[in-house]
Amino acid sequence: MYYIGIDLGGTNIAAGLVDSCGRLLRKSSIPTQKERHYREILTDMALLARGLVEEAGLSLAAIQSIGVGAPGTPDVKNGVLIYNNNLGFKNVPVRTEIQKHLPLPVHLDNDANCAALAEGLVGAAKGASSSVTITLGTGIGSGVIINHQVYSGFNYAAAELGHMVIKFDGQVCTCGRRGCWEAYASATALIRQARAAAAAHPESLLLTLAEGDPANITAKTPFDAARQGDPFAASVVEQYFDYLAVGVSNIINIFQPEVIVLGGGIAQQGESLLSALQKRVAREIYTKDSEAMPATQLKEAVLGNDAGIVGAALLGFTTE
Amino acid sequence: MYYIGIDLGGTNIAAGLVDSCGRLLRKSSIPTQKERHYREILTDMALLARGLVEEAGLSLAAIQSIGVGAPGTPDVKNGVLIYNNNLGFKNVPVRTEIQKHLPLPVHLDNDANCAALAEGLVGAAKGASSSVTITLGTGIGSGVIINHQVYSGFNYAAAELGHMVIKFDGQVCTCGRRGCWEAYASATALIRQARAAAAAHPESLLLTLAEGDPANITAKTPFDAARQGDPFAASVVEQYFDYLAVGVSNIINIFQPEVIVLGGGIAQQGESLLSALQKRVAREIYTKDSEAMPATQLKEAVLGNDAGIVGAALLGFTTE
Repeated sequence: MYYIGIDLGGTNIAAGLVDSCGRLLRKSSIPTQKERHYREILTDMALLARGLVEEAGLSLAAIQSIGVGAPGTPDVKNGVLIYNNNLGFKNVPVRTEIQKHLPLPVHLDNDANCAALAEGLVGAAKGASSSVTITLGTGIGSGVIINHQVYSGFNYAAAELGHMVIKFDGQVCTCGRRGCWEAYASATALIRQARAAAAAHPESLLLTLAEGDPANITAKTPFDAARQGDPFAASVVEQYFDYLAVGVSNIINIFQPEVIVLGGGIAQQGESLLSALQKRVAREIYTKDSEAMPATQLKEAVLGNDAGIVGAALLGFTTE
Repeated sequence: MYYIGIDLGGTNIAAGLVDSCGRLLRKSSIPTQKERHYREILTDMALLARGLVEEAGLSLAAIQSIGVGAPGTPDVKNGVLIYNNNLGFKNVPVRTEIQKHLPLPVHLDNDANCAALAEGLVGAAKGASSSVTITLGTGIGSGVIINHQVYSGFNYAAAELGHMVIKFDGQVCTCGRRGCWEAYASATALIRQARAAAAAHPESLLLTLAEGDPANITAKTPFDAARQGDPFAASVVEQYFDYLAVGVSNIINIFQPEVIVLGGGIAQQGESLLSALQKRVAREIYTKDSEAMPATQLKEAVLGNDAGIVGAALLGFTTE
């Protein structure tokens, strides 16, 4: 059997055909044009899915189900997108609309949960029964996999690990709380920290690499400048690792997952990030890696942007 | 069928006979005398259990299983207590030792997990499929129930919610981390906060109620003094509620459990504590209580000290 996964984003709709081993066989995407009525957008999603099936020379009978991953708050049971800020969706009946065009089971979940499912089942945490995937981007996306399934709480809104306060009375977060992990360990937060260091130390390489304009500082800049020996950048990076490690250690003390997967642009720092993190985490957590009490492994995400599509398709694996 | 639950503490061993509805029919306890060899302690536990069965006029054939709850780190699968600081236990084969005396299935789990199982299945969260039980005592005990079962991670060490850092670089915790929730919201932390306020404001009722000696300040003192109009006590209590609320809100954003149960001495403040907490939590979390997205309910624990015994017995309900 085959599965369709659709990643509904604010800019593009990406869809893919996935086989029963979770391999992405082909994919395709179109602009979302989010100003349109939701019916048009969902019709396009159905047509994109149908196109993939036809291009693969398959019949609809070969497709087990369609999964949709979208940012925002899903009603997983009823296949309704309760709320999506970016698309302006409110109580959009995703399942019903898609089924008007394609007579298949339709599953819906949060995009971060889909990414976690993909990394957990066929990606970096393949083989682990439990995993947590953290995506360090504009915000912190997160998903929790327990017994090979998405854990989303009794109201499907759980696993918002970025909105765990790690600094009482700290930085205001986009969610309205103060001191959320996301406000310290997202790419956005790192950029803010690097810009503040550049402002305080104009002689820093942070500013040189940004051609003198702090607005050009990206999440990669402090890592690059630190690698070239800039002490200000090095201290930004060290401080950032500390923030990252506190949240990761919290997640271990809370979930003790077999694997924690780190994704997003910052995770591309790869081994240097993982080992800096590993060192800090080992100091913070209870569990010392041993036969009697194995410790959580930290790994870099492997599926990249495909995680959303693959995970959406995998929703059909775990709910049937 | 009937079940035996045994709560192994540093001071006493308490055992109880529980029916298939989770009702505690009779209980009994003896001193632990923890300086003894573990074999003697475990033999006593088996004899205590046997005594309960005989006193109830039952035969061993009527007993489905024995459950043991103990502080420390259990190897749930093999029934071995890997580590118990207070009793000085290391890799103690609880199951094997008890089975030398009683030919019954023996289950083992952490005492906080047992309490959470009891409150979750037959206590304050009865009927909920997911719940988190928080015990505000010397430390913060916690257990997570998902799908009517204890969640304890791949290595049985999960759900240490008290050791989630809520204040980066804050108070040193007993676990070695800085800024753990336990260091701000346990009864021990509240007493420390109240004593500091009494030292800073010797005119406070905090000191009067403690007969002038800060050492007499308990976790109840600030609540009593605040109720009598003392402004210093009131501000200790308000600050404490803020700390408590940040951790509870984190737990909601992470788990979205149907119910959070609060136990331990401080929870006996009852409705006044729950409503102060509810007000703060509602400001912090995403989920606004609605039909489409119901919010977690906060409740006071109902089983008191029996939670440990009942929960240990219930281990036999969920693992068979």
